[in-house]
Amino acid sequence: MKKDLGVVSAVFPMPVLMIGTYDKNKNVNVMNAAWGQICDDDKIMIFIGEGKKTWNNIVKSKAFTVSLADAKHITEADYFGIVSGNKINDKFTHTGLTAIPSEHVNAPIIDEFPVCMECELIEIVKLKYTNGIVGKIVNVKADENVLDEKDIIDPKKLNVALFDTFKLGYYTIGEEIAKAFDVGTKLLKDK
Amino acid sequence: MKKDLGVVSAVFPMPVLMIGTYDKNKNVNVMNAAWGQICDDDKIMIFIGEGKKTWNNIVKSKAFTVSLADAKHITEADYFGIVSGNKINDKFTHTGLTAIPSEHVNAPIIDEFPVCMECELIEIVKLKYTNGIVGKIVNVKADENVLDEKDIIDPKKLNVALFDTFKLGYYTIGEEIAKAFDVGTKLLKDK
Repeated sequence: MKKDLGVVSAVFPMPVLMIGTYDKNKNVNVMNAAWGQICDDDKIMIFIGEGKKTWNNIVKSKAFTVSLADAKHITEADYFGIVSGNKINDKFTHTGLTAIPSEHVNAPIIDEFPVCMECELIEIVKLKYTNGIVGKIVNVKADENVLDEKDIIDPKKLNVALFDTFKLGYYTIGEEIAKAFDVGTKLLKDK
Repeated sequence: MKKDLGVVSAVFPMPVLMIGTYDKNKNVNVMNAAWGQICDDDKIMIFIGEGKKTWNNIVKSKAFTVSLADAKHITEADYFGIVSGNKINDKFTHTGLTAIPSEHVNAPIIDEFPVCMECELIEIVKLKYTNGIVGKIVNVKADENVLDEKDIIDPKKLNVALFDTFKLGYYTIGEEIAKAFDVGTKLLKDK
């Protein structure tokens, strides 16, 4: 039996995205954002509030990075979602994490997170009821120990966190259950 | 050590979204989409190709549903991503799954999937390099057995699939590692 729950933002799982930016003085800011997704093969769209430190930084610097938070650094990742960079100046440095300048875009890479997309701002999108930022992914940097023998990121080595928007928890990923674009072909064969 | 991988669409995990629509004759179509995300408290944006059956159906019917695929129906979910509704007319009926008309929007609910967002089309967004569809979530329907005692969806009962875009696999979720908006407060106390 299904039950009506009213309006719930029921996308699950959500990623735990760490948006890294510079302000005009090259001070690092990192924000925790769940509302972001790939919108094209080489592009990502993020939905963050206009006026947030991250929004203002991206508008000025024309760039941002998006790292995946791993379980090991979930305390720092969550802190980046609790504290406002507009209110606390040393938000990033307080964590003790390490920022390295991207060689490709005007934004910082947080070294402790295993995977980082380096993005150029290509569009600020005014939607009817909200706004979004589109970045072009110009490079991805990943820790060697999360790569397989072909230099493809291996989820089994990644240990990233995922966000549960229903009861506000962070989870790891579990077991692989099937191969995509593969298990469904069983149904094709029946045709 | 970090390694440059070039351009990779490195959002992980991605959801396994089942987009349900009617064509003009009320035939059901379901598409598997990973590129979708909440863009506002009560809105979802999906990035699907213009000209796809789902795109055309939404433009005409002004509505769609978004269900979360669970591990139990991963074969059907994957099939919905392999087969084109423009090419195979009985794409949905071939799976043997059950479609029920939504009471709130002009779109079908697939009964076997545990959670379903019922969405009204509110905006077709032309981006510089791609396009997207924004839906307003008017109701969520969920199986009673995935709810906790307060009628909140419980990820531990949900058994949904997540999509690995790197090596094209589907995974379950694993253990809860922390509470969001909570574990990070440890760092606040140090300040």
